[in-house]
Amino acid sequence: MKKILVVGSVALDTIRTPQVKGDYILGGSAVHFVNASAILGVPVDLVGVVGEDFKSEYKEFLIKKKANISGLLSKPGKTFHWEGYYENDMNQAYTVKTELNVFENFQPHIPDSYKNDPFVFLANIDPVLQLNVLDNMNSPEFVVSDTMNLWIETKKKDLEKVISRSNIIFFNEAEIRQYTGIMNIVKAARKVIETGPSFVIVKRGEYGFLLAGKDELFCAPGMIVEQVVDPTGAGDSFAGGFMSYLSVKERLNFKNFCKAAVYANLVASFNVEGLGIERLNNITFKDVKIRFQKYKKFIKGYDL
Amino acid sequence: MKKILVVGSVALDTIRTPQVKGDYILGGSAVHFVNASAILGVPVDLVGVVGEDFKSEYKEFLIKKKANISGLLSKPGKTFHWEGYYENDMNQAYTVKTELNVFENFQPHIPDSYKNDPFVFLANIDPVLQLNVLDNMNSPEFVVSDTMNLWIETKKKDLEKVISRSNIIFFNEAEIRQYTGIMNIVKAARKVIETGPSFVIVKRGEYGFLLAGKDELFCAPGMIVEQVVDPTGAGDSFAGGFMSYLSVKERLNFKNFCKAAVYANLVASFNVEGLGIERLNNITFKDVKIRFQKYKKFIKGYDL
Repeated sequence: MKKILVVGSVALDTIRTPQVKGDYILGGSAVHFVNASAILGVPVDLVGVVGEDFKSEYKEFLIKKKANISGLLSKPGKTFHWEGYYENDMNQAYTVKTELNVFENFQPHIPDSYKNDPFVFLANIDPVLQLNVLDNMNSPEFVVSDTMNLWIETKKKDLEKVISRSNIIFFNEAEIRQYTGIMNIVKAARKVIETGPSFVIVKRGEYGFLLAGKDELFCAPGMIVEQVVDPTGAGDSFAGGFMSYLSVKERLNFKNFCKAAVYANLVASFNVEGLGIERLNNITFKDVKIRFQKYKKFIKGYDL
Repeated sequence: MKKILVVGSVALDTIRTPQVKGDYILGGSAVHFVNASAILGVPVDLVGVVGEDFKSEYKEFLIKKKANISGLLSKPGKTFHWEGYYENDMNQAYTVKTELNVFENFQPHIPDSYKNDPFVFLANIDPVLQLNVLDNMNSPEFVVSDTMNLWIETKKKDLEKVISRSNIIFFNEAEIRQYTGIMNIVKAARKVIETGPSFVIVKRGEYGFLLAGKDELFCAPGMIVEQVVDPTGAGDSFAGGFMSYLSVKERLNFKNFCKAAVYANLVASFNVEGLGIERLNNITFKDVKIRFQKYKKFIKGYDL
């Protein structure tokens, strides 16, 4: 089991969906990542920042989920707050407001005890900060990064550096098209791979994902979920599932990347069934295995 | 090999895509259906209408593709003409104009020699005409229907009757949501199944399809196509692949429906690689089998 460093947001989210509402509930990319990694009991070294309004019970939650929070800074001011809603199409989040608060001047501080972590997940934050994290680590074995349209628009050069230093980069379909200017997803992925990473994972929401290497290609549909309650954090749960699955495997190779992505896909399918962190909080590896049996039937590869 | 009746449009299409353009090229749902069925050499009884401008070489093409065109009426006037274009997002067709011409007063005439056909495919035409066709057939064994948003909006009652008399109904995701008022695709499919059909196929474009029964569920991603040239007719090629595959099988059961849909999925993936009917025209069953081997690798079901 290899230790994982995650750098990302720790947030208080205000969420409205057709099914549920939550006010100032625990969220953020690093939190959803930890919540997912905990299914396999993988310890995560967390780097982030919170304000004075961050409740001690939230810290206890993270510790219970095997997060080391010595890298979680507490600063004067308020915790990062995102307010948004979803309508019937749960693929589309509408942001009402984003209050950066203490996150505005966030400078990741990497405690010495984190610096040898072999796995690093750089959640979707400013690529300048992502680079800063990499500069402070002692040659990690496996770096996976996430990003978003904002950084593609505003900090492309820095993002290019992050990607060139990552083993795997996550995009959604719109992002990889925007980043490369290429409409065809496979061609776009190959162009990204030329710049450094061995693999690209294109997240396709309810349609699953595509994992592309130089000569490899693997695709799996999303698990059908009968009641999507709140999709917030699905991508970060996917990341947590992916990294934690690999952290308990011997080898980092294509076959294990495929398995890890299928596992992550199922973990994300649980995440969307509850508000915020609620659903995954109660999920065990056994639950994922039971769903995997259903999923296998669901995607059974018939011979013609 | 069971004979298939298809009722649908025979058209001259004017198409622009970022890759190609075609003016007044052979198209229409019944034509794409025949073009796909021909891969397995399955004879199709075609019902449709064309105008005086319909070239004899087009009729010869249909005959070469094993279509019986004694049900293809020639009327004074012009053939149905659709003009449209695609931009970079090939999932979205933009219609420039639709000239119904002889199709405007189309009344399907079913020749006596067609009336015992065991398989019927009702392509996307006015549900009043679809019902008319069913009334003129001698209890077909297997009826599959397609439809579109226009008929859901304007002729819902007639469409409900068509669906209640179909064994399988095709929708895309937006259509089944519109038809049922239910956002969740699986729940929507179950609601449709309560009204008569045994199965619903939800076409998801490049993401493949979902096949849903009362208690059955099967999903497969679309084959990754590196160069989408023209998606026109993909849905009707899917239908032709699906019906022809089943027409050569002994049993109509869930397992064969799954296999037929996977086959259809691959046939449709060829269709989009060329303008109009061009690409599928040159595809053999061997080509499909070769692509199936790639596809199997691509969706390989890894154990966790």
